[in-house]
Amino acid sequence: MYKDKFICDNISVNENGHLLFAGQDTVELAEKYGTALYLMDEEKIRSNCRTYLTALEKAFGKGKGHALYASKAASFKRMYEIMKEEGMGIDVVSCGEIYTAVKAGFPMENAYFHSNNKTDEDIEYAIKNGVGCFVADNEEEILSIDKIAGAHGIKQKIMIRLTPGIDPHTFAAVTTGKVDSKFGSAIQTGRAEEITAIALGCKNIDLIGFHCHVGSQVFDSDVYIRSAEIMLDFIAFVKEKYGYEAKCLDLGGGYGVRYTKADPVIDITANILSVGEVINKKCGELGINVPVISMEPGRSIVADAGMTLYSVGSLKKIPGFINYVSIDGGMTDNVRYAMYGSAYTLLPANKMNEVPELVCSVVGRCCESGDIIQPGVELPASIKRGDIIATLTTGAYNYSMASNYNRVPRLPIIMLYEGKNYVAVKRETFEDVARLDV
Amino acid sequence: MYKDKFICDNISVNENGHLLFAGQDTVELAEKYGTALYLMDEEKIRSNCRTYLTALEKAFGKGKGHALYASKAASFKRMYEIMKEEGMGIDVVSCGEIYTAVKAGFPMENAYFHSNNKTDEDIEYAIKNGVGCFVADNEEEILSIDKIAGAHGIKQKIMIRLTPGIDPHTFAAVTTGKVDSKFGSAIQTGRAEEITAIALGCKNIDLIGFHCHVGSQVFDSDVYIRSAEIMLDFIAFVKEKYGYEAKCLDLGGGYGVRYTKADPVIDITANILSVGEVINKKCGELGINVPVISMEPGRSIVADAGMTLYSVGSLKKIPGFINYVSIDGGMTDNVRYAMYGSAYTLLPANKMNEVPELVCSVVGRCCESGDIIQPGVELPASIKRGDIIATLTTGAYNYSMASNYNRVPRLPIIMLYEGKNYVAVKRETFEDVARLDV
Repeated sequence: MYKDKFICDNISVNENGHLLFAGQDTVELAEKYGTALYLMDEEKIRSNCRTYLTALEKAFGKGKGHALYASKAASFKRMYEIMKEEGMGIDVVSCGEIYTAVKAGFPMENAYFHSNNKTDEDIEYAIKNGVGCFVADNEEEILSIDKIAGAHGIKQKIMIRLTPGIDPHTFAAVTTGKVDSKFGSAIQTGRAEEITAIALGCKNIDLIGFHCHVGSQVFDSDVYIRSAEIMLDFIAFVKEKYGYEAKCLDLGGGYGVRYTKADPVIDITANILSVGEVINKKCGELGINVPVISMEPGRSIVADAGMTLYSVGSLKKIPGFINYVSIDGGMTDNVRYAMYGSAYTLLPANKMNEVPELVCSVVGRCCESGDIIQPGVELPASIKRGDIIATLTTGAYNYSMASNYNRVPRLPIIMLYEGKNYVAVKRETFEDVARLDV
Repeated sequence: MYKDKFICDNISVNENGHLLFAGQDTVELAEKYGTALYLMDEEKIRSNCRTYLTALEKAFGKGKGHALYASKAASFKRMYEIMKEEGMGIDVVSCGEIYTAVKAGFPMENAYFHSNNKTDEDIEYAIKNGVGCFVADNEEEILSIDKIAGAHGIKQKIMIRLTPGIDPHTFAAVTTGKVDSKFGSAIQTGRAEEITAIALGCKNIDLIGFHCHVGSQVFDSDVYIRSAEIMLDFIAFVKEKYGYEAKCLDLGGGYGVRYTKADPVIDITANILSVGEVINKKCGELGINVPVISMEPGRSIVADAGMTLYSVGSLKKIPGFINYVSIDGGMTDNVRYAMYGSAYTLLPANKMNEVPELVCSVVGRCCESGDIIQPGVELPASIKRGDIIATLTTGAYNYSMASNYNRVPRLPIIMLYEGKNYVAVKRETFEDVARLDV
């Protein structure tokens, strides 16, 4: 009865009316591991990587198109192992992510270190751990990299993060490429040129190119084309004025994912090929070599590979007002509705053959009215304590943004792969939560 | 130069232009413990407790007015020790909080277990740990408590959470007492009466009274008066109809705190005394005994006892647009601007004698545009990498809502007391952050 809500091909239902994820029975998984619980479909993660890798290679040629996993979307050891196996680069944004990638044995020469504010200690740590490239955000950072790289007797590769001045018409909190962004330096104001000149003057820095990022959850197919054109114009300008030709251009980000049926289906391959055509043509017109092109998908690698399972605790009907279904998780494991008002699709995992006739707000267990997973969810009228509810598309920015608010332990991550399942992140215990208390 | 921004009496400045907190030099504390860093003023926590305890006793008589610390505001072991020493009760909302209070040696008969969704495991855990009273939210919970208490051969004390139908005109996410709240049962719809009858029919439950909570950050002095009147009317109604007279009435919450100069100064004592007068008078009119009255301050116990110190990483001026000062923390340690748009007062801890002439957004280090601590902050024009910035009034809902987003380790909490300082919560390490990764 809920098939019109299936938004990804790894979702189905069996003869018992149980929701299947990656072909596995979610009701059995809830029983086996307990709720609340994150599931991740490893094959989907891998196939999402291959979509980007294949399309980028096709668009730019072997070794000329590169995909980096933006690991802030979901950062834990097993993810970096999978990225290594798939031949992805990684985008890391903190020493915590670097630490985790190193533990996973990821080849750090393929790691790109982002962040708008790297401390001297961060820079030292990244250099010591052999991070391949810094995506330098600001002047203070460039000067610090130069100094610390010098002290280590190396020449550190960097890209400079620029803001192309594009508004991708996405949510404000995830818009990053406008002139007034906290990230990077604007081309429009002349600051991009100034900071490029500063980097070119640093003897312990090897400037390999430029980076931009226009935002997250991008659906407009021309967003990357517009930003690429602006960035290539800047590369040509710098070549002309300073005699320096960028070898790499990182376009940041990836394409949008489907949280509900209202989100469009994106043909990632076709989109990347269109971007490739424009870039190849434009480089010819500008008389510059086609740089190595990178993209940094995060959400679109892991979002639809994730699902969260909850148990229902109570159904509360307030006639004339609203119905509530409370579950054993909430803003601690998925803060996105509380923070951004994000849309999600929810399904009654053990009652998929029943009729969606009760409209309710599915709310979390935190002592906070804003602790809502999703309003307006359609569930069976029979929904009751003990039933299992699934939230789809929770692979990105759920675990990574999780908190211990209310001292609620964080959920485990169970990987589903080739008909088997295994623990990738263990369930947090009360002892874990309190272990730093003196 | 920043004295007009001092919003609490534990803030001052010394002859070097250094910000003092609880009389201690914040620049020295930043040096000693590193940044980013939470500070807490233990004496302020204790004096805030005494304000409530003294006023409630004065309003209702010895043993007839009770203050419970709503520990979700800041839950860690040392806090429960202080609450024990001050003779406060505690409001706990999860087994994680119960676990922590038990570890601290808190007398659990003075613990009140809230939450809109307690699982059977939660109820079992709380009963095993001798939690004094459940604040039962819904029918499913009451039936589960009855069953589990029976299995343990005890009669469990509970209060029932009701919604008096009051809008305290505070922020929607922290409004909890309206009819359409996810919490409790509405008096207006008749559900409160039904659920009371259910509880009275449970043989393993000792219904001691009723609870309500109208919201957080309450400044209107009549909010508690209005909710008390509605609750007392309900108590009289139940006495009349069912012959049951509630012994306890918990009014929930506490009074608002000052985040900026725009927030009013509340005379908590005077407010509680007015509430007391109304309650005592009204009980006489209704012919009921004055119940034991509780309040549950959380924010107003710890908020102004907290301060966060950061180091500046970069100053970014985007002429014609905006200025950014980025710091070595962010939404990971204080999510309240990102989540609610909350106002805060920020000060340049090592440059308090300089002129506030640069208006800027102070932004965090997370790879997210929404990672803003506060826009429109006035700082000295000389602000630069390495300077120390303090955010005031961060004692509530900062540490407790902290996350490892971007795999950023959580900050330590340093207690300041009687001229000394000590670690109450240790700084998280990268190893800690990744320790549950398999």
